[in-house]
Amino acid sequence: MSIVMHDLAGADPDLRFSPYCWRTRFALAHKGLPVETVPWRFTDGAAIAFSGQAKVPVIQDNGTVVSDSWAIAEYLEDQVPSPTLFGGATGRAHALFVNAWADAVLVGGIARFIVRDLLDIIDPKDRDYFRASREARFGTTLEAVQAGREDRLAAFRDSLLPIRLVLRKQQWLGGAAPSYADHIVVGTLMWPRCASRFALLEDNDPVALWQDRMLDLYGGLGRSAKRA
Amino acid sequence: MSIVMHDLAGADPDLRFSPYCWRTRFALAHKGLPVETVPWRFTDGAAIAFSGQAKVPVIQDNGTVVSDSWAIAEYLEDQVPSPTLFGGATGRAHALFVNAWADAVLVGGIARFIVRDLLDIIDPKDRDYFRASREARFGTTLEAVQAGREDRLAAFRDSLLPIRLVLRKQQWLGGAAPSYADHIVVGTLMWPRCASRFALLEDNDPVALWQDRMLDLYGGLGRSAKRA
Repeated sequence: MSIVMHDLAGADPDLRFSPYCWRTRFALAHKGLPVETVPWRFTDGAAIAFSGQAKVPVIQDNGTVVSDSWAIAEYLEDQVPSPTLFGGATGRAHALFVNAWADAVLVGGIARFIVRDLLDIIDPKDRDYFRASREARFGTTLEAVQAGREDRLAAFRDSLLPIRLVLRKQQWLGGAAPSYADHIVVGTLMWPRCASRFALLEDNDPVALWQDRMLDLYGGLGRSAKRA
Repeated sequence: MSIVMHDLAGADPDLRFSPYCWRTRFALAHKGLPVETVPWRFTDGAAIAFSGQAKVPVIQDNGTVVSDSWAIAEYLEDQVPSPTLFGGATGRAHALFVNAWADAVLVGGIARFIVRDLLDIIDPKDRDYFRASREARFGTTLEAVQAGREDRLAAFRDSLLPIRLVLRKQQWLGGAAPSYADHIVVGTLMWPRCASRFALLEDNDPVALWQDRMLDLYGGLGRSAKRA
């Protein structure tokens, strides 16, 4: 039986844009595990109440329920060791730093470029919740958060320097082959790619060239994803 | 025969403060390899001309010469596999991201807090070179770079959030045991610790508590290092 995954969707159920759900989609594809995704919206808490928490991704694997993209990656690695996501215990521990960096720097950084755009693609029933919760988090309106984004692009691009330094020495964050470190970063970048038309990267940025290679993996999983 | 390592020293030859040399010192200690360090100053290029480049650390191991802290870590891992620094190829690839983050975020961030202090502890013969090269890099005087550092502390501490997020889940960056990822970060923090009296971390910061544990490893290698 396929793994079932609740996956954040927009008003268009085919539009999937959660940076965390995409990490899981890439990890599942890396393992060659088929998945049946269930479109889920921010206000569909009841639909995942069985997981004991309120966020996606949530996977159900023959009765086992796992939530949180990092916990899901660990679960998949433990259940299906090959092909590996982490390359062992130390590789897993080091990947957690990449995960933490993506959460702290990438997600926070990208939000300030696209959070108002998200309002246009999410389900109408989610809009009041989304605006209220995000405006409380940022302490200002979504419009004010996103304003002047062109002027902030250079600083955002600078924040990606660690990825560029790694890609000078190896083709993937995982080294000679993609690993969950690659899935973390490309999954996070699927969020602006699918939810907004604002271009965060220059075409010739080594990060964009690596992203291009990632989009082609697993039968073009990322490349074929619907965009806003 | 012990490995010989050229190690950046201050006017006081016992004061060692290079963030890159400290990464190597921790890696050598992790492997249980004795090392004979040779004090080296910025203007002692001729003393390491045998390495074909102009920066420390440089190690000599029975006729083999290796420079660059990352290349040295790889060399040590390949020569002496256990105890491991990386935990395999993927762990090594992921550690390169930590190394890149430390170079891009930590070294660049810390420099702005201590670069003027460094002038007071380096060898008098290095001072003209140091001031000229660093002022060219920053485009202003060392005094101007360091000015107002108290006001920039909060932002610097925020930049350490990825480390804090990792330490919520595991005791070391390497997971259940320290790895080269730990050496990269603690080695970088030895630079301000040894070269300046300016306190970058709050005592109760989880990063400071982890640093304390790191300082006690390997017979107190970090703890016993001479400070300015």
